[in-house]
Amino acid sequence: MTAPIAIIMGSQSDWETMRHAAETLAALGIDCEKRIVSAHRTPDRLFAFAKGAKAQGFKVVIAGAGGAAHLPGMTAALTELPVFGVPVESKALSGVDSLYSIVQMPAGVPVGTLAIGKAGAINAALLAASVLALNDTALAARLAAWRKQQTDAVKERPEGSA
Amino acid sequence: MTAPIAIIMGSQSDWETMRHAAETLAALGIDCEKRIVSAHRTPDRLFAFAKGAKAQGFKVVIAGAGGAAHLPGMTAALTELPVFGVPVESKALSGVDSLYSIVQMPAGVPVGTLAIGKAGAINAALLAASVLALNDTALAARLAAWRKQQTDAVKERPEGSA
Amino acid sequence: MTAPIAIIMGSQSDWETMRHAAETLAALGIDCEKRIVSAHRTPDRLFAFAKGAKAQGFKVVIAGAGGAAHLPGMTAALTELPVFGVPVESKALSGVDSLYSIVQMPAGVPVGTLAIGKAGAINAALLAASVLALNDTALAARLAAWRKQQTDAVKERPEGSA
Amino acid sequence: MTAPIAIIMGSQSDWETMRHAAETLAALGIDCEKRIVSAHRTPDRLFAFAKGAKAQGFKVVIAGAGGAAHLPGMTAALTELPVFGVPVESKALSGVDSLYSIVQMPAGVPVGTLAIGKAGAINAALLAASVLALNDTALAARLAAWRKQQTDAVKERPEGSA
Amino acid sequence: MTAPIAIIMGSQSDWETMRHAAETLAALGIDCEKRIVSAHRTPDRLFAFAKGAKAQGFKVVIAGAGGAAHLPGMTAALTELPVFGVPVESKALSGVDSLYSIVQMPAGVPVGTLAIGKAGAINAALLAASVLALNDTALAARLAAWRKQQTDAVKERPEGSA
Amino acid sequence: MTAPIAIIMGSQSDWETMRHAAETLAALGIDCEKRIVSAHRTPDRLFAFAKGAKAQGFKVVIAGAGGAAHLPGMTAALTELPVFGVPVESKALSGVDSLYSIVQMPAGVPVGTLAIGKAGAINAALLAASVLALNDTALAARLAAWRKQQTDAVKERPEGSA
Amino acid sequence: MTAPIAIIMGSQSDWETMRHAAETLAALGIDCEKRIVSAHRTPDRLFAFAKGAKAQGFKVVIAGAGGAAHLPGMTAALTELPVFGVPVESKALSGVDSLYSIVQMPAGVPVGTLAIGKAGAINAALLAASVLALNDTALAARLAAWRKQQTDAVKERPEGSA
Amino acid sequence: MTAPIAIIMGSQSDWETMRHAAETLAALGIDCEKRIVSAHRTPDRLFAFAKGAKAQGFKVVIAGAGGAAHLPGMTAALTELPVFGVPVESKALSGVDSLYSIVQMPAGVPVGTLAIGKAGAINAALLAASVLALNDTALAARLAAWRKQQTDAVKERPEGSA
Repeated sequence: MTAPIAIIMGSQSDWETMRHAAETLAALGIDCEKRIVSAHRTPDRLFAFAKGAKAQGFKVVIAGAGGAAHLPGMTAALTELPVFGVPVESKALSGVDSLYSIVQMPAGVPVGTLAIGKAGAINAALLAASVLALNDTALAARLAAWRKQQTDAVKERPEGSA
Repeated sequence: MTAPIAIIMGSQSDWETMRHAAETLAALGIDCEKRIVSAHRTPDRLFAFAKGAKAQGFKVVIAGAGGAAHLPGMTAALTELPVFGVPVESKALSGVDSLYSIVQMPAGVPVGTLAIGKAGAINAALLAASVLALNDTALAARLAAWRKQQTDAVKERPEGSA
Repeated sequence: MTAPIAIIMGSQSDWETMRHAAETLAALGIDCEKRIVSAHRTPDRLFAFAKGAKAQGFKVVIAGAGGAAHLPGMTAALTELPVFGVPVESKALSGVDSLYSIVQMPAGVPVGTLAIGKAGAINAALLAASVLALNDTALAARLAAWRKQQTDAVKERPEGSA
Repeated sequence: MTAPIAIIMGSQSDWETMRHAAETLAALGIDCEKRIVSAHRTPDRLFAFAKGAKAQGFKVVIAGAGGAAHLPGMTAALTELPVFGVPVESKALSGVDSLYSIVQMPAGVPVGTLAIGKAGAINAALLAASVLALNDTALAARLAAWRKQQTDAVKERPEGSA
Repeated sequence: MTAPIAIIMGSQSDWETMRHAAETLAALGIDCEKRIVSAHRTPDRLFAFAKGAKAQGFKVVIAGAGGAAHLPGMTAALTELPVFGVPVESKALSGVDSLYSIVQMPAGVPVGTLAIGKAGAINAALLAASVLALNDTALAARLAAWRKQQTDAVKERPEGSA
Repeated sequence: MTAPIAIIMGSQSDWETMRHAAETLAALGIDCEKRIVSAHRTPDRLFAFAKGAKAQGFKVVIAGAGGAAHLPGMTAALTELPVFGVPVESKALSGVDSLYSIVQMPAGVPVGTLAIGKAGAINAALLAASVLALNDTALAARLAAWRKQQTDAVKERPEGSA
Repeated sequence: MTAPIAIIMGSQSDWETMRHAAETLAALGIDCEKRIVSAHRTPDRLFAFAKGAKAQGFKVVIAGAGGAAHLPGMTAALTELPVFGVPVESKALSGVDSLYSIVQMPAGVPVGTLAIGKAGAINAALLAASVLALNDTALAARLAAWRKQQTDAVKERPEGSA
Repeated sequence: MTAPIAIIMGSQSDWETMRHAAETLAALGIDCEKRIVSAHRTPDRLFAFAKGAKAQGFKVVIAGAGGAAHLPGMTAALTELPVFGVPVESKALSGVDSLYSIVQMPAGVPVGTLAIGKAGAINAALLAASVLALNDTALAARLAAWRKQQTDAVKERPEGSA
């Protein structure tokens, strides 16, 4: 059976960021595919993947890319599935270029964009999980438990304060 | 029956932007609630709304706000439903403040963020529709038709060129 | 007796910045509470803390947070006490996101915002002290002495110049 | 008797912004002085005003300026009173220059900074009021009423929605 | 015979900017095709156009787009022809988003990017002309004449000065 | 006799900004030459002007330009005279591009840069006047009078305040 | 015989970036000249080089510079050859100053601008190669092979994923 | 005899940057005073210094500061001498705050602003030297020699290239 979620990224170097999405999905018991799909270096792979994603059985696509980050938006142009975009931190511009390239999509083709970098990768997984949980009460329970644990883990007072 | 989607916004002035989300949902035959919920001026209403959103039957929340835009993120902190955020264009900073306040959420509490302004409002609706369409084949068909119409409406040559 | 000042922060990692506020208050002989209150991970704690802050006897709240920093503004929405916000330096955006999320509050709910990072934390303490000193002549004298010492400590010529 | 609050601004053109601080104080029944004090064109006036502000009986200074906005910070350097700064929107840089010039004060001399423009002016007044209210229960009641009225004025649904 | 240059743009609204490229080419006696090719709304058209551009006989592609501007970069991913990109001025972010989305291409897929807006459109035409002129001495002469005329048209003294 | 100050600008459209420099010099009784010298469209004129400026008898060059503003820096590369640069406000980027292009000169070739737009043009004139006044006591007296008048013209209270 | 491409740069320190252009050209079998030409420190060399570039037999000029980067634009002002600019990453502003100084050229004098830093240097070489390939089928074949190899080198799955 | 140039800076930590101004002046045989003058921590020292600078015999003031950098502008408000400002690189905002705080002076009080950091410090010295050289032919000759040496030191080809 196809995993419900595909995590795609523009290059091997994005994995350092996007693996946090994969790990978060794993912690929630959600299976995922991880693939390198470069909008610029492998445009045919992008077209094939994105056009076939729905038929393959994916429910949500998480796409991470940096710089002139076209992968999330082009994927969204080619599939009706929800696409969540993760701006990977770039060298010179710290991910502002990635963020603008992903979030400023024109009317008609949406990408739900998360924060720059690791936090965004984790949150893309959580957002995808919340979408799946709309029709999966077991997952909804696991997600609720994950969030409760997160809340419970916040200490009352900062360690190191008197 | 509750509408599947709630559109909330921080103030009356955000309606000029957020009505485009409502109109897009209407065009897709999706019902929605529209409410003003100010994180800053009506924090109790925010808590009540967000904590009860799931029990009330909403599936997705679309939240628009400008400036130090806390509404989408605080809503996401209080519900397990998917939250999509629309940065409303602000006066001095053109919505960059709104964008950063919405998209840069810490790991653990995601907001799927769309473009600044009208395009973002329309796309929040389309993204929400794509989520609902995962389990609604009739809606999926309407969404596909909407997208096909959008594609077909793109002229070959710019009007005004010789 | 309750300390007159509460220092709250969004996460343990903010303590590295916010401890400078605590140390500055200590140097001025002002007691303070330090608490982790995450707007996003512990919204109920935020509501309980902020709504009860005045009744508990606090006079001023100092709130530090980074990224989509909602803690200072949400606290200000829930208490009539003066709230001073410290933008903690964020990884990708160097605290510009934190600054905009804190300072760009809408009319009606003020947060007095200080500089990004350590300087801001120290200054939040000094500003809070100046507020308390309005009705505490002994503190006013200590604050004046602190400032005089600061002035006296500025050398005439840079060390290392010929 | 001296008014408890001084509103100072760098030029006549800032009054269009700063009058909102004066009007907000008036609505709360707080008296204020309004003066033009240009850090750059009238530095002697600045020194005389700021050094004498406490002795004159002021409790809080609200200072608005635009561009390379030195008035709030220099005032804070010359008085132990709390100083709240309002970045006035500038022509080319939309107030980002004003904001950075006011908020990025070095450790030792704090300015509590509000939002750029009109919202910041209103909020400087509210923040000053919250400081005075710490020792004025009648004012505290008026401020609470003002806030309640603000909350009550938020409509449930956006006007213009069906 | 195919025109040597194709001007493509993401939407009808970009024509207002891109027509300056067409007019500049016309002034230099260079024929061009003008087409609307939306990366997001007509991805199939983009693929067909870009993959076939070289075989169709085009020498240079000029691509203009705004916001999350993926058209120039995706075209460059699909053709070996030189691609010059024009960032169209966007509403909220004044074309900074367009600029970053076009210029920050990853190593391997170049887009020669021009200035935001009208100046960029004119210059894309001039740059394309300089490429064609490398093997067209008649065009080289026309281009040199155009530049000489431009130089000659610069007055010695500003009109309106005494 | 040559005027002591040359005001050069990149195009006719810069005159609207740079005329404020000319008017300020006139108010101080200082003669000036105004010329259009485009670094990009008339590079030979730039070379001839800048290389000959000192021999012609100019003491200070004021150079205004917008966008990728190379005129001030290239002039400074070609003359040993002090060069003061005025970033003219640009359309899309509001003069941030002009500012960075002028102020961020590498070590070795200085341009004293003023504010973006009209204020910068006025201040370039005042700065040039202060340089000339170092060896012209009559001018020094006029400059002092100008500044005193400026100080005296600042009203005590904002017009329009009660 | 002259190399078809000149790589010029503002200083020795730019070589660390620009050598990637040289290496990419070498990989494609294209000869190039590498020269230091500082617009600010050697303006005469700039004039001599740029005015003579076409007569010397160069076809394309690649110019890299940082900060107030005037080299690409001034070169473009002095030659009719296509000029491609590479914004070298600067210390304080991370190359945003370099980018704006290069890309925001006024209408009439184009610079085809690539990404900040190493990626931009590589892409300048590729873009120059694509220009030469328009009239060199052997090179066109090598460029196509280079691109195919690039595509083939993209792995299907990220290394390090399960 | 008083040195002709005063180098002032806001704190000891600025010396690391400003010493490059002192060293450049020394290389040109120009004497200078170096002083720490903090606008915020020692406002009285600032007033005394700036008001007395001309009478003391200084010709030019070089002022370096970081963050909300008020020292150059306040000095310019208090003296008729030319003031050149150096934005010291700040931690979070990389000196953009310093730059805006120094360069965006209002009409009437000019600060000739140099680049952020070390290059700006060197250039402030060179600009001051060019001002002094207007009336000191020996210095003019040394400055010309310094510039010629700078030009001669630029190698033809980058070291490390084949």
